[in-house]
Amino acid sequence: MRTIQWDRGKVQMIDQRRLPFELVLVGTDDYREVAEAIRNMTVRGAPAIGAAAAFGMALAARQSPASQAGDLVADLEEAAQVLLATRPTAVNLAWAVERMLHQAKSAQVPEVEKLRNLLAAEAQRIADEDVEINRRMGTYGAELIQDGDHILTHCNAGALATVDFGTALGVVRAAHEQGKRIHLMVDETRPRLQGARLTAWEMMQEGIPMTLIADNASGHFMLRGQVDLVLVGADRIASNGDVANKIGTYNVAVLAHAHGIPFYVVAPTSTVDLRLAAGDDIPIEERDAEEVTVVDDRRIAPEGVAVANPAFDVTPSRYVTGIVTESGIVRPPFQEGLKEAVGESRREAGVYS
Amino acid sequence: MRTIQWDRGKVQMIDQRRLPFELVLVGTDDYREVAEAIRNMTVRGAPAIGAAAAFGMALAARQSPASQAGDLVADLEEAAQVLLATRPTAVNLAWAVERMLHQAKSAQVPEVEKLRNLLAAEAQRIADEDVEINRRMGTYGAELIQDGDHILTHCNAGALATVDFGTALGVVRAAHEQGKRIHLMVDETRPRLQGARLTAWEMMQEGIPMTLIADNASGHFMLRGQVDLVLVGADRIASNGDVANKIGTYNVAVLAHAHGIPFYVVAPTSTVDLRLAAGDDIPIEERDAEEVTVVDDRRIAPEGVAVANPAFDVTPSRYVTGIVTESGIVRPPFQEGLKEAVGESRREAGVYS
Repeated sequence: MRTIQWDRGKVQMIDQRRLPFELVLVGTDDYREVAEAIRNMTVRGAPAIGAAAAFGMALAARQSPASQAGDLVADLEEAAQVLLATRPTAVNLAWAVERMLHQAKSAQVPEVEKLRNLLAAEAQRIADEDVEINRRMGTYGAELIQDGDHILTHCNAGALATVDFGTALGVVRAAHEQGKRIHLMVDETRPRLQGARLTAWEMMQEGIPMTLIADNASGHFMLRGQVDLVLVGADRIASNGDVANKIGTYNVAVLAHAHGIPFYVVAPTSTVDLRLAAGDDIPIEERDAEEVTVVDDRRIAPEGVAVANPAFDVTPSRYVTGIVTESGIVRPPFQEGLKEAVGESRREAGVYS
Repeated sequence: MRTIQWDRGKVQMIDQRRLPFELVLVGTDDYREVAEAIRNMTVRGAPAIGAAAAFGMALAARQSPASQAGDLVADLEEAAQVLLATRPTAVNLAWAVERMLHQAKSAQVPEVEKLRNLLAAEAQRIADEDVEINRRMGTYGAELIQDGDHILTHCNAGALATVDFGTALGVVRAAHEQGKRIHLMVDETRPRLQGARLTAWEMMQEGIPMTLIADNASGHFMLRGQVDLVLVGADRIASNGDVANKIGTYNVAVLAHAHGIPFYVVAPTSTVDLRLAAGDDIPIEERDAEEVTVVDDRRIAPEGVAVANPAFDVTPSRYVTGIVTESGIVRPPFQEGLKEAVGESRREAGVYS
C-alpha cells in the first residue's frame, strides 16, 4: 500500500494525522486540496511531499481549461506557486514541482490533452522512482548494520514519509529482510510525535523489534552503550553536507558524536539542494504554538504562554558520518561526493541534462 | 504560599498533577497517604519530597499508639520503610527520613507526647530551612547571571519542587528580584511535562519573561547563540559530582558542553549522597509506560508498543561547570568541595555531628 497514489484522475493519500488509530484515505481531484494536505500535514515527510506535489501538478493540468499548451503552462506556473507556498523547508517539494514544470515546458507537445496525460505519467514516474530509490538506499545502507545492532531513529523517515519503503526506515527494513537481528530505539519526536504515532506503528506492523522512548532519554541510552548507530532522514541537505531535518535531530547528532556513535542520514538526491552553500541558508519553518501546548484537544501548558516551535533544525556536516543516497554512501568531505551523487542520479533519470 | 505545610495535625500539599489548570490543596493526617502522594507525584521535586517525608514521619508519630518512646521509635522505623519505598532516586527523601529518625532516637525524651511535638517541630524546621536554603542559593547563584542573559532550564526546579522559592528557579527569581533582565527558555520536559505545566506556570505568575520549547529544540537555540547559561536542579549528587536529575538533563548537559555554555546545578547539600562514589551507583527509577503513551487520557502511541521510561539520568561531573549549594558554589574537582559544603551545612543545622 502506497501513502500516495493516482487513481482514475484523483490523488489518494493516507491521512497521517489519524494514524496509528485509523487508517483513512483521503482523495481529491483539486490541486489546491493537495496543497492544503501538505500544509496541514495530512501528508508529511520530504519525499512524500515531493510526490504529492507532483500529483498536485498533474491535477492542476487536468483542472486547467486551457486549450493551448502555452496557457496550460501558465496555469501550471500558478499552481506551482500555490504548492510551493505550503511548507518552506523540504526541498523535495520544489524539486518535484520544478521537474513537472520542466516536463511541461520541454515536452514540445502542442495537444493539451496529450500534455495532461504526459504530466500524469511524469508524476507517476516520480512516485515509482521514489520507491525504487528507497529500495536502493536500503541495500546500500543495510551494509552499515551489524547483526545485533541497536539503531536509534528520530521522527518518521519511513514508508509514510515517502511513497513506500522509507529512507532511514527503508535501511532498517532492508537489514531486517536480510535476517539481521536489529532493535530500533524510536524517539517519540515532540511536538508532533511522528515517532510515537508513525514509526512505532510501521515497525509494529512488520514485527521489527523496537522500543519507544521520550526524546529526553536518547542520551541516557547512548551513555549506557545501548545505541550502536543513528539513522535519520532529511528535509534538505546543503551542498556542504549540512542537514536540515525534524527538530531534535541536531540534539541526537551532537549526542551521537559525544559517544562516538555513527550518525547516518538516509535521503534521496532530490533532498540535496546544490544551490545552497551551507545549512545557514535553509529556511526553518516556525509552526503553530498549539503543536507544543495542546495534545489532541488537551491543553498541556498555561493559556497565553509564549512558545517557540521551530519544526526543523540544521545539523552541521561535521556531525554527519555519512549520507546514504540512491547513488551510494557519500562520506566527508561532502561537497564533491554530493555533487557527483546528484549528477549521477539525474543522468539516470534522464530528466535534467 | 508553600507547596507543603503543617496545619493543625494535618499535612496540606498542593496537588501538582492538577496544575497549571487548578490550584488544589490535599490534606491528610495519615503518613501512608503522604507516601502515596509522593509515589503518585502529587508532590514531586527532590526537596519537596524530603519535606513531605519529614511531615509524614511527624504524622506517623501522632498515629502511633505507643505509650513508650522505644515503641514510638519502632513505629517510626516502620513508617520510614513505607516512605522510603515510594521513590528510589531523590536522596532528599532518605536524608529527611533519617534526620527525623535520628531526632527521635537522640532526643532522650521519655514522654511520648513531648517526642511527638518535638518531631512535628523538627519537620517544620526542615521545611523552614528549605526555604531559607533556597534563598541563600538564589543569592549565590544570581552572581552567575549577567543582565540580558538567556537561561535554559529543564523540568521544574522551582517553588513547586521545594517548599518555596525553588532551587534553579530560585536563582532565576533572585536575579529577577535584583532587576536583571533575563529570559528563561523552558524545556517542556517529556514525558510528564513539568516544564510546560509547572515551570511555565510559576514564571508566568511572577511575570518573568520566558519561552516554552519542545525538549528537541534546545540544541537549535544553543547553536543560534540564544542560550547563555543552563540551570537545573538535582535529585541526587554523588560525591564525585555526578548528578542524577530528570531524564533529558544529560542531553542538555552534553549540548551545553558542545556549545561552550556553562551548565550549573542548583541543589541543597541534602541532595548530596557522600556514600556514593559515583553516579553509576544511583538507582534510576523506571516509571510506567503510560507516561509516554498517554497524555491526559489521550493515547498517543499504538496499543501494545514497547516503551522504556527511565525517569532520571546521570550527568557525569565533567559536564558540570559548578554546583550551587547553600554553602556556596562548588567547582571542579568536586570531591573535596562537596564534602566541605555538606559538612558546613550540617554543622550549621546542628543535627549531625
